[in-house]
Amino acid sequence: MFFEGSEKKLEIIVNASAPKLRSLDRTFWVGLVAASNADILSSISNEYCDAYLLSESSLFVWDDRLVMLTCGTSSLVESACYCIERLGEQAIAYVCYQRKNEYYAHLQASSFGDDVLRLRHFIAGQAHRMGHLDSHHHYTFTTDKEYQASRFDTTNELLMYHISGPIADYLRGDQQSMVQIGLMLQLEQLFNGFSIDQYLFSPLGYSINGIRGCEYFTIHITPQENSSYVSVETNIDLTTTQVDIFAELVRLLQPNSCDIIGFNSNIANKQFLKYLCLSQCAMTIEQGFNIHFSHYQQDCLEVLNPTLL
Amino acid sequence: MFFEGSEKKLEIIVNASAPKLRSLDRTFWVGLVAASNADILSSISNEYCDAYLLSESSLFVWDDRLVMLTCGTSSLVESACYCIERLGEQAIAYVCYQRKNEYYAHLQASSFGDDVLRLRHFIAGQAHRMGHLDSHHHYTFTTDKEYQASRFDTTNELLMYHISGPIADYLRGDQQSMVQIGLMLQLEQLFNGFSIDQYLFSPLGYSINGIRGCEYFTIHITPQENSSYVSVETNIDLTTTQVDIFAELVRLLQPNSCDIIGFNSNIANKQFLKYLCLSQCAMTIEQGFNIHFSHYQQDCLEVLNPTLL
Repeated sequence: MFFEGSEKKLEIIVNASAPKLRSLDRTFWVGLVAASNADILSSISNEYCDAYLLSESSLFVWDDRLVMLTCGTSSLVESACYCIERLGEQAIAYVCYQRKNEYYAHLQASSFGDDVLRLRHFIAGQAHRMGHLDSHHHYTFTTDKEYQASRFDTTNELLMYHISGPIADYLRGDQQSMVQIGLMLQLEQLFNGFSIDQYLFSPLGYSINGIRGCEYFTIHITPQENSSYVSVETNIDLTTTQVDIFAELVRLLQPNSCDIIGFNSNIANKQFLKYLCLSQCAMTIEQGFNIHFSHYQQDCLEVLNPTLL
Repeated sequence: MFFEGSEKKLEIIVNASAPKLRSLDRTFWVGLVAASNADILSSISNEYCDAYLLSESSLFVWDDRLVMLTCGTSSLVESACYCIERLGEQAIAYVCYQRKNEYYAHLQASSFGDDVLRLRHFIAGQAHRMGHLDSHHHYTFTTDKEYQASRFDTTNELLMYHISGPIADYLRGDQQSMVQIGLMLQLEQLFNGFSIDQYLFSPLGYSINGIRGCEYFTIHITPQENSSYVSVETNIDLTTTQVDIFAELVRLLQPNSCDIIGFNSNIANKQFLKYLCLSQCAMTIEQGFNIHFSHYQQDCLEVLNPTLL
């Protein structure tokens, strides 16, 4: 029943002189996704963005950039190489390739170190680790090219490990519906006015993409007992929403631990009721991104049962 | 500078009808150690026990049992198979094979799951994980055979991650001596009356074995910045010592996090000043061992710098 929910993430921004990404034909995107050993399940579009729901997570495409997340044992680094090679290195303004903490790193097709070596065949960049090796940590590879991000170019990521409580139980149950999951997670209230595309995996797992103008959110749920993981990612400014979206999702899903990663986002020092922030790491890169990583753990002794393997 | 300090551990107890282990000739032990890709550096002996200092950790041999620890990317499971095959499965009373939390699991020659499949070619047994996958956890494989351990058959393991403070700084320095390390760690006071054998590795690393009658202790230090690890293991009854040995070593080495593993030991619910116990797991196996695992973390927000890779 094990599935590695933890994602790799790729963001590529192209130069103004490059072709608009949304003008590229479908074979380009099918090829990009196939390079990660994933498939396109469905898609939605609006004036600004095409959002693809994938067999392993999501792809969002705007005219000047793409954001792609893939979970499981997918090879997202190959999608990065595919994209840089086909667009040409000159067309690329900025690349950020991330890997989050995995449950079973040894089952992955490659390590982050391997991925960096592969990327450097195509483009120069710096690699960093944020967080201790024995605890949650987060890897980034960012390109060296001259590029200046707007300080409003923000991304917020909430990664929840070992969810519990009634919603977690429902997500692990035999009978689920997408409507009920949406209601339980209060998605209409939390992400109001978004067009959505969602998918319920068999036997377990749920993905949703939402777009509203240039904004997106995506949630991926791997509910499996002993290795549950939920990721939430959005480029909306979380400091201006009426409801505290991340706090609400943590309250609903009751993870044993969670991480918050922010790009040009000031929610890194967030306080959650009943959670301790055990470590924090921040860095500012020349390309105009301030990257924050915070690791939280429930402030209580968790008594675990041994797991028979 | 990375070295995987975290150990695999093997304990084998033989039946009364088996040859006394200490009567086996040296070629047996050289072969056993070579199966793990390790070498014997030196040894000490007393009336009850032979203690070998290895290029990767330690081996202790009594007439009825052996305890072997190996770190790095050593293949301790092969030593287990070597031993069971040569002694004959009928000679074996009990086997416990453990793997502790590794920093870089993907660099290991095998996963714990692989090791269990390998062991089951030679002997039947149960495999368990104690602790969450995304945090510190600990694997055990224990044989199914009828065997009854004495409730006084105790082992205590203290595993310290990310040490800090003046002793950690000294251990990472250019100039070290074994005498100074012993003084700083107060080894004479903590382990009084033990015969010792120690080794200073180049460029970094320190190992010590101590024996006193049937009792042993062993300490292995991997001081490398960003991936430091110190293990302490002993079969002495820690509840009867004048000094609280584990508390004292934690105070001296100031790890960011630590684990305590106990076999028939009642120190699992130990309180450390300034440390939170975040998770605990216990199980009792039919062979008469109660196994405890506790994971501790410093009760403070640690602000980390990103690590350039």
